[in-house]
Amino acid sequence: MRENNWDIVITGGTLVTMNAGMEIIEDAFVGIKNGIITAAGKRGDQKNANDPAKETIEASGCIVMPGLVNTHTHLPMVCFRGMADDLPLMEWLTKNIWPAEKRFVSKKMVYDGATLAMAEMILSGTTTFCDGYFFEDSIAEAVSAAGMRAVVGQGFADFIMQDESAIEKTMVSARRFIKRWLPRAPLITPALFCHSPYTCSPSTLVPVKEAAREAGILYLIHLLENRDEAGTILNRYGKKPVQHLLDLGILDEQTVAVHCNWLTKEDIAVFADLGVKVSHNPESSMKLAAGVAPVPEMLRQGITVGIGTDGCASNNDLDMFREMDTTAKIHKVTSLNPTIMSAETVLKMSTIGGARTLGMDKLIGSVEIGKKADVILMDMNQPHLTPLYNCYSQLVYAARGADVKTSIINGRIVMKDRKLLTIDPQAAMENVRRIAADIIHQKMP
Amino acid sequence: MRENNWDIVITGGTLVTMNAGMEIIEDAFVGIKNGIITAAGKRGDQKNANDPAKETIEASGCIVMPGLVNTHTHLPMVCFRGMADDLPLMEWLTKNIWPAEKRFVSKKMVYDGATLAMAEMILSGTTTFCDGYFFEDSIAEAVSAAGMRAVVGQGFADFIMQDESAIEKTMVSARRFIKRWLPRAPLITPALFCHSPYTCSPSTLVPVKEAAREAGILYLIHLLENRDEAGTILNRYGKKPVQHLLDLGILDEQTVAVHCNWLTKEDIAVFADLGVKVSHNPESSMKLAAGVAPVPEMLRQGITVGIGTDGCASNNDLDMFREMDTTAKIHKVTSLNPTIMSAETVLKMSTIGGARTLGMDKLIGSVEIGKKADVILMDMNQPHLTPLYNCYSQLVYAARGADVKTSIINGRIVMKDRKLLTIDPQAAMENVRRIAADIIHQKMP
Repeated sequence: MRENNWDIVITGGTLVTMNAGMEIIEDAFVGIKNGIITAAGKRGDQKNANDPAKETIEASGCIVMPGLVNTHTHLPMVCFRGMADDLPLMEWLTKNIWPAEKRFVSKKMVYDGATLAMAEMILSGTTTFCDGYFFEDSIAEAVSAAGMRAVVGQGFADFIMQDESAIEKTMVSARRFIKRWLPRAPLITPALFCHSPYTCSPSTLVPVKEAAREAGILYLIHLLENRDEAGTILNRYGKKPVQHLLDLGILDEQTVAVHCNWLTKEDIAVFADLGVKVSHNPESSMKLAAGVAPVPEMLRQGITVGIGTDGCASNNDLDMFREMDTTAKIHKVTSLNPTIMSAETVLKMSTIGGARTLGMDKLIGSVEIGKKADVILMDMNQPHLTPLYNCYSQLVYAARGADVKTSIINGRIVMKDRKLLTIDPQAAMENVRRIAADIIHQKMP
Repeated sequence: MRENNWDIVITGGTLVTMNAGMEIIEDAFVGIKNGIITAAGKRGDQKNANDPAKETIEASGCIVMPGLVNTHTHLPMVCFRGMADDLPLMEWLTKNIWPAEKRFVSKKMVYDGATLAMAEMILSGTTTFCDGYFFEDSIAEAVSAAGMRAVVGQGFADFIMQDESAIEKTMVSARRFIKRWLPRAPLITPALFCHSPYTCSPSTLVPVKEAAREAGILYLIHLLENRDEAGTILNRYGKKPVQHLLDLGILDEQTVAVHCNWLTKEDIAVFADLGVKVSHNPESSMKLAAGVAPVPEMLRQGITVGIGTDGCASNNDLDMFREMDTTAKIHKVTSLNPTIMSAETVLKMSTIGGARTLGMDKLIGSVEIGKKADVILMDMNQPHLTPLYNCYSQLVYAARGADVKTSIINGRIVMKDRKLLTIDPQAAMENVRRIAADIIHQKMP
């Protein structure tokens, strides 16, 4: 008997590789062994196509593609989905979200929320995400259980850590968090997340960046989400936000700035020069009326931009397919230029571009030999996906999360034919419904 | 044995009525007899709840609500979905869509395209739509077969009818079309559709309006989709488009103006004064970079506005749930005011408001006693719809077409548990794939 050559083979279907040549391969074959893609090409060209496989996935009628990378989430905020909508950003934050967080965020809420959020993400094609919240240790545990790939960012914000001893305590726990997850969980990469320049003073921003630099991990920060932020920072520190962060030594290739709706051309040049990455969250910023990020200009200047959904309270979903559709459309209409953001560009931003944003483009973001096996199958045999002229157009403008049929992360099948294999969705929903019932009850006693 | 009291009963679930009081009823009961809603209220309050029913639909865990009204479509354009994207409006129209239409539009293409489009629409919660295209006789036949409710608008455009005899011939066939469908098909209402002021000369616009007025039916027209249209009409006729149509006697309560992206405040006042209705198609206008309609100002001035998806070539789907989400978000961000367009307002526009746009608000658009039974069930027991604080928010910002479980049109179940009962989706897809194969083959010989 021959050695078992494949853990998983995917045969047939159209492979949208998202590799450097943007190859699209009809009647494809993808072979996976030990979590790695060991074959990716035309089925007819594979010598070992008929070697035994532990699992064979028939993909005819499907598009086979890299799993999507969601570059910005706050998973536990699923617990606040739809709790407060149609409000101004600052009222939404200061009167609804922050008080609810102060009162209801706990290790258990974070774990349960993250689990439900991951169910939603797997069901809609995301295989890797980058999260920033509190109690990230619990999130990392939930991620481990669900088998997703994640950058997990421990959050810092002065309104939570109100004195120096609290900051010191948080720093100690952040270092413990890094030490715990960095060396031993292949799917989890710890990161540090300062909420924003207006909620973190330099005495928080700087030591957190130093800790991130020391550990060689990502530093995440919300930046210029709202138009008022520039004025706030100017009043407080006598300079604009990007200059402020630049002077504090925060900006480098390991920094991911989130939103960046009000970045000026000069700010973009600074980012391009220093290699700062950007996470673009169009739906959240539309819903909060925060603004539209100048992404076409960022791309023109060579900045790496990934797409993110943001937390569920401001979106209100984690569906990267919807986010792609919106990304293409919002930039076309705000520029009145329909050629400024193509479907292909958008799909790059949510696969290989997202991977690059998180410093993971050597590992994931495309389906090619040697990369980690993060692969999804899209069921294209559906009325709303017929006919099929152009894969990029169809995936961005017509497909949606519910069309994801099967998902593989790191060579493990986490969803097959829409059935989740690592999360019990009914239990996850029940747990979050209980949290929501508490919130409703305690808000309106 | 007692008389059979109900054709269909829907028991349990949360009823989002969209009636004048915007009632939301938990643990509801909806009874249907002879195509009419004959009961709608709390389950516990129904004396006849246990009378026999031919069909009982268990709705616990669901939202029960009126079917969505898509106020602007060109169904056969599903055949062009994804054929040409990311192009300027005029290049897209004149170099891609119009040549393809000239070459490939036929009775059969129209019938097959409409059938696939209706499969997609039923699967995503639409029960009524308003279409404008050519060969609408074939569309009406397809609508009859599928059992949807529709306003079917026979199209006029000078680039197709190039001489007077052609216009006369089209008028004759339009009158025959009205005569055929007006008196005898309860679900089909004929209408007349002039493509636009820039593609129809006054000698087309005026007699078509006269024919519509004579028959007492709707008159549909694209208006100010693109910024350039105002200049084009000003150059040609010495006045702006709305003044041009006003002077031609086109504008009245039976006119539905589609897009209206560049309507001025003064134009809006004219529309409000005359009762002209508006169909708002945000995703199409975003994708084509055509503009954002001033809908908040229209609503402020009391204009009736419905939502539409437009044709599939410019969207690229017919999912009204996505369209609702985008409607709320695009107006928030362009005004930088998150309170300007609430989820509730948007849901009204796609149910009762859409019905009012089409002159059907006495018949449909809400779930209340005496109205036609156009009802959908949304499966809310899903990760991306959990938890549930607010029905309007959840339906607009988190739900999507794929969450529609069951659909009833005029008291007939057209989809049950996601299975279409009046259309064979595989056959519909195969037919359109053949048309697309011809287009690909003949485009690139």
